[in-house]
Amino acid sequence: MSLKALFEPRGIVVAGSVSPGKLGSVLIDRLLDGGYQNIFVVNPKGQGYGDIPGFVSAGQISAPVDLVVIVSPSFTVASVLEDCGKAGVKAAVIITSGFAEVGNKDGEAEIIAVAKKYGIRFIGPNCAGMANTDFNLYATLEEKPLPGGISVLSQSGAVGGAVMVASKERGIGISKFLSFGNGSDLEVLELLAYLRDDADTNAIVLYIENIKDGRAFMDVLKSTTAKKPVIVIKSGRTSSGQRATLSHTGSLSGSDQVYSAALAQCGALRVRTLEDAYDLCQGFAVLPQPQGDKVVIVTNSGGPGVMAADQADDEGLAVLEASPALKEELGTFLSPYAGKGNPIDITVEGTGEQYRRALVTALADYDSALAFYIGTPYLKAMPIAEGIVSAAKETGKPIIASLMVGSDMAEALAYLKANNIMYLPDGERAMKVFAKMVQYQTYLADKNEMVAPVAVKANLPGMILEPDAMDLLKENGLPVPAFRFITEKGQLQAAAAEIGYPVVMKVVSPQIIHKSDAKGVYLNLQNIAEVEAAYDTMAAAFADKDFRGVMLYPMVPAGKEIMVGFHQDPQFGPVVLAGLGGIYTEILKDVALAVAPVTPEKAKAMLKTLKCYPLLTGVRGERAIDIAGLAQLIADFSQLPFAYPDLQEADLNPVFADENGVAIVDVRLIRK
Amino acid sequence: MSLKALFEPRGIVVAGSVSPGKLGSVLIDRLLDGGYQNIFVVNPKGQGYGDIPGFVSAGQISAPVDLVVIVSPSFTVASVLEDCGKAGVKAAVIITSGFAEVGNKDGEAEIIAVAKKYGIRFIGPNCAGMANTDFNLYATLEEKPLPGGISVLSQSGAVGGAVMVASKERGIGISKFLSFGNGSDLEVLELLAYLRDDADTNAIVLYIENIKDGRAFMDVLKSTTAKKPVIVIKSGRTSSGQRATLSHTGSLSGSDQVYSAALAQCGALRVRTLEDAYDLCQGFAVLPQPQGDKVVIVTNSGGPGVMAADQADDEGLAVLEASPALKEELGTFLSPYAGKGNPIDITVEGTGEQYRRALVTALADYDSALAFYIGTPYLKAMPIAEGIVSAAKETGKPIIASLMVGSDMAEALAYLKANNIMYLPDGERAMKVFAKMVQYQTYLADKNEMVAPVAVKANLPGMILEPDAMDLLKENGLPVPAFRFITEKGQLQAAAAEIGYPVVMKVVSPQIIHKSDAKGVYLNLQNIAEVEAAYDTMAAAFADKDFRGVMLYPMVPAGKEIMVGFHQDPQFGPVVLAGLGGIYTEILKDVALAVAPVTPEKAKAMLKTLKCYPLLTGVRGERAIDIAGLAQLIADFSQLPFAYPDLQEADLNPVFADENGVAIVDVRLIRK
Repeated sequence: MSLKALFEPRGIVVAGSVSPGKLGSVLIDRLLDGGYQNIFVVNPKGQGYGDIPGFVSAGQISAPVDLVVIVSPSFTVASVLEDCGKAGVKAAVIITSGFAEVGNKDGEAEIIAVAKKYGIRFIGPNCAGMANTDFNLYATLEEKPLPGGISVLSQSGAVGGAVMVASKERGIGISKFLSFGNGSDLEVLELLAYLRDDADTNAIVLYIENIKDGRAFMDVLKSTTAKKPVIVIKSGRTSSGQRATLSHTGSLSGSDQVYSAALAQCGALRVRTLEDAYDLCQGFAVLPQPQGDKVVIVTNSGGPGVMAADQADDEGLAVLEASPALKEELGTFLSPYAGKGNPIDITVEGTGEQYRRALVTALADYDSALAFYIGTPYLKAMPIAEGIVSAAKETGKPIIASLMVGSDMAEALAYLKANNIMYLPDGERAMKVFAKMVQYQTYLADKNEMVAPVAVKANLPGMILEPDAMDLLKENGLPVPAFRFITEKGQLQAAAAEIGYPVVMKVVSPQIIHKSDAKGVYLNLQNIAEVEAAYDTMAAAFADKDFRGVMLYPMVPAGKEIMVGFHQDPQFGPVVLAGLGGIYTEILKDVALAVAPVTPEKAKAMLKTLKCYPLLTGVRGERAIDIAGLAQLIADFSQLPFAYPDLQEADLNPVFADENGVAIVDVRLIRK
Repeated sequence: MSLKALFEPRGIVVAGSVSPGKLGSVLIDRLLDGGYQNIFVVNPKGQGYGDIPGFVSAGQISAPVDLVVIVSPSFTVASVLEDCGKAGVKAAVIITSGFAEVGNKDGEAEIIAVAKKYGIRFIGPNCAGMANTDFNLYATLEEKPLPGGISVLSQSGAVGGAVMVASKERGIGISKFLSFGNGSDLEVLELLAYLRDDADTNAIVLYIENIKDGRAFMDVLKSTTAKKPVIVIKSGRTSSGQRATLSHTGSLSGSDQVYSAALAQCGALRVRTLEDAYDLCQGFAVLPQPQGDKVVIVTNSGGPGVMAADQADDEGLAVLEASPALKEELGTFLSPYAGKGNPIDITVEGTGEQYRRALVTALADYDSALAFYIGTPYLKAMPIAEGIVSAAKETGKPIIASLMVGSDMAEALAYLKANNIMYLPDGERAMKVFAKMVQYQTYLADKNEMVAPVAVKANLPGMILEPDAMDLLKENGLPVPAFRFITEKGQLQAAAAEIGYPVVMKVVSPQIIHKSDAKGVYLNLQNIAEVEAAYDTMAAAFADKDFRGVMLYPMVPAGKEIMVGFHQDPQFGPVVLAGLGGIYTEILKDVALAVAPVTPEKAKAMLKTLKCYPLLTGVRGERAIDIAGLAQLIADFSQLPFAYPDLQEADLNPVFADENGVAIVDVRLIRK
């Protein structure tokens, strides 16, 4: 469905009072100020505004009108839509509030119904409007943006408005501004898809607080990042309290971490603060894309250079020492007291020409540069700015300038801006920008294959005991050890012999969750006498606990204990999680998660993000584990919630892993 | 020694050329502009500047002059000092560069010698000068600061200059500005002590890149923070490469971490960026001190409120949910759709009066508040500003305002400023400010007892083998198990019987460092036959390895493995370190460190900072260890480098700890 009526209307109706100080008049001023011409007013009095003609009904307007912008009181919105619908209007911006956000769900349902009847697509209600600078269209009460290539899509009108003000202050040009308020028709999915396909949008800033359909969002987001960068600000953990969960997995994966994982899986760049978002916008708007992660710092003051280098390191950029050849080359034109490593400290005596030459020379080896300079109030900063501009032109590589103090700072900064050199007041922020730009390049360079969920296989019974759970894992090709479910003592001898001594015996009872704590597990049983004695003890001990029998397993070599699980996230559905079991997950919260299903490659990438990953690869004499086998297990396991949609949560805890392979030693499957 | 001649000179000589554009003339303009009167010029031509008289020698000046500010070329500085010294000048600000920083060590030695001869105290050379706004004295080429209560002490002139510019932009008033350049006479120790005792200085910003005498610095710093807050920016890890170390301890404690530990031990507030420093300055300059860590967020936009709450949580502030009583009270005047938890979201409809009342009501339960507001470009923000100002006056508690977007933003911000309300453009930064202010209060509330180092006990032999090391630990009251050093097979029977079976045998040889790897350790020897067999095997195996005998120990119950160590930091001397052994320290780098010696209380506090601390207190069925015993061990051990100053590094690795106590199982002592 085309949104042309919204973004490029042939005519606009403003619905609402245009008396002095009323929103209608403010809005028309905005529209006129933006250069839009074909404006009409509709209100009960048919009152116009200046040269803009007023009508009591949109039907009276003879010119074509595609869009209505509504600022009239909430109780009038449905009838305005009805009137405009009859007149052929196909799009609406409903700025008016007073609907679902204050409990008026009926009112909101009514406007949805009317809009549907007439095929009207709308943003709002309770939104801050929209702007399309490429069409001189400013249907918003927020600050008029500068034209440019960044589009802003905001779930919060207030935050969107703040972004408009700040982007103007920083000279960031905007293509589209979209605030969708309650989002009862158009919301993030369709609007993001529109921006994805919009040729005038080069990068997108997305502010979200929550998402209705996480999977559909991921699909649109992924197709968007394939074409242009998407910077996401997602406000943090919900204050609505923690979900009650029964499994480890559930309690270990906060909803905010799931958002982070989902955004990363789609190649979106999550930033933490609005300031970081503005900085990064500016980076994408102004800088050439860094072709790698190697950054060099050219400074005239040692300490701040090192501070920037530290930040670069924290952000995962490569702050490599200058090569001997580079040092030698730098030595030919820098002071003997200059620092020639990285940072390159050209000292307080450094000239603009030295900045230029140091940057040009170093950027032969590096992918991006910070040019940091602190001057004095009685000397000009302009020569430095000129050196930086020359270097940027000569190299075609991204340089961020951090210039401070000078008799001509305003002039020097204006010169940088005129020459498309990004300026930031501190080096740390520059490093964050480079790091995110590199992250985007890295994402694009990877294959990022998503695997499709498998088809539904079966419905599951009400309570899944260990024998059924192990059967299910086995059927799905997961590495379980041999096992036998024993319901009568007489089966023990043959079963234990088949499995091979020594064996492990575990009680099976719907009433016993923590088997070890309940003394429902016997390890290392050496012969039939021990096995039968164990069985007798359990049968007696659990006689009043709905004793269903026992599971027999071989003793599996212990290896490393891994925990793998999944749970259903309310927004994103199945989420898979992995970590080293025990204290690593419990105390150190060292877990990796991803929206399921995942490929074995993604599972490997997840494991690599663990702080304790070195333990899996063999350090200090410890043995490496079968990473490929574990990754395959995680990938296969991540399909289970799709094969068995009744499953709410599952833990494999522990999985034993050593150099020879992986084996699932305990399992819990929990139905919805 | 008084520094009155420097800070409150009766007259000032400017030494250098005053031709147009020369630094002498710039400097005199600064001095005059600041309101200082008694200025004289000395240069070879005796050239004056405007109304300021010129002389060829300071001896010709009849009025009293206490201070010379030198901007003449480096080769003239010694003779200027000589001339001024003869004329009774007692202080100098040597802005001129070209000394040790460019290899001219002789030149620097010469000026030190001349100054000493005449009792002249000086800052510089190669510095950015100083200012004392309380005396209208601006002997600096940097931006003239506003008067106020913050003093700035900077090792880097450039950074100091940048701080001057930024503080002026933010309206932060300065009492003293001090840049000491090469610091060849006055440097951080004496200048910090001066600011400590300066009644006009309420808070100090200190920028350091390195410190010569860490212990002396700590003493001054600690005495300063007892009187006023000290905000420290320390540029990060040195680029001069890692020190080569022989012990675990050395490799685990980077020099930057030692700085962090030392600063925290002295109650200084380390911040990461200049921006954080300015924010915190403003906090100390403007805000009442928070009396606790409970922060409330009042917002009209949900998402940014939650983002600020997340930051508060990360910073260690308590973002407690509103009490039922508070919620009820809020319900009497806020919209039914307002969020009444924490953040308190008064929604877009929120009025200035609602801000006031929500803040006043909530601040009965909380210690500090963020008032966050995003308006619209066509509505005034002033009513909100008025509500916030009223609430701050009514409660006397710290409130930071984050106001964005409004038709009258400039006016609203000016009103906040005029009423001493701190403004920051985002909520995250506000939380950093509150957190550091609380950190300072917490430090002051603690006793922070420092323990004196013990007296030197002895010199140590060249190589310390395990028997000697264990003897030394035992002598110093550290918990070592029983042990016997056996040099002949015949001693085994009696010794093993005394110790009690089963026993452990370890080889003693200066050539064998990694005893386990070399098969030089036998555990769990049950009887004399096993003991003698083990001895024979070792004696044979290590015959060509300078075999000195074996150590016998009892089998110590394993418990948790703790690692405790110390090493000599180049700046701070002995630094003690503790962590759980093995992968916790090796892979997860989970270690706590402090400048030694430490009290048992400090050792306990160190252990609490470990991420794996819960493992020591008993979680998930694991047993707690004897924390008090371990803390005592760390405290006693931290005195060893003082008792035996020959020691360069030491590891106790592992210490076995369980609920019954602690025991040192292996030790390495390394001499300087």
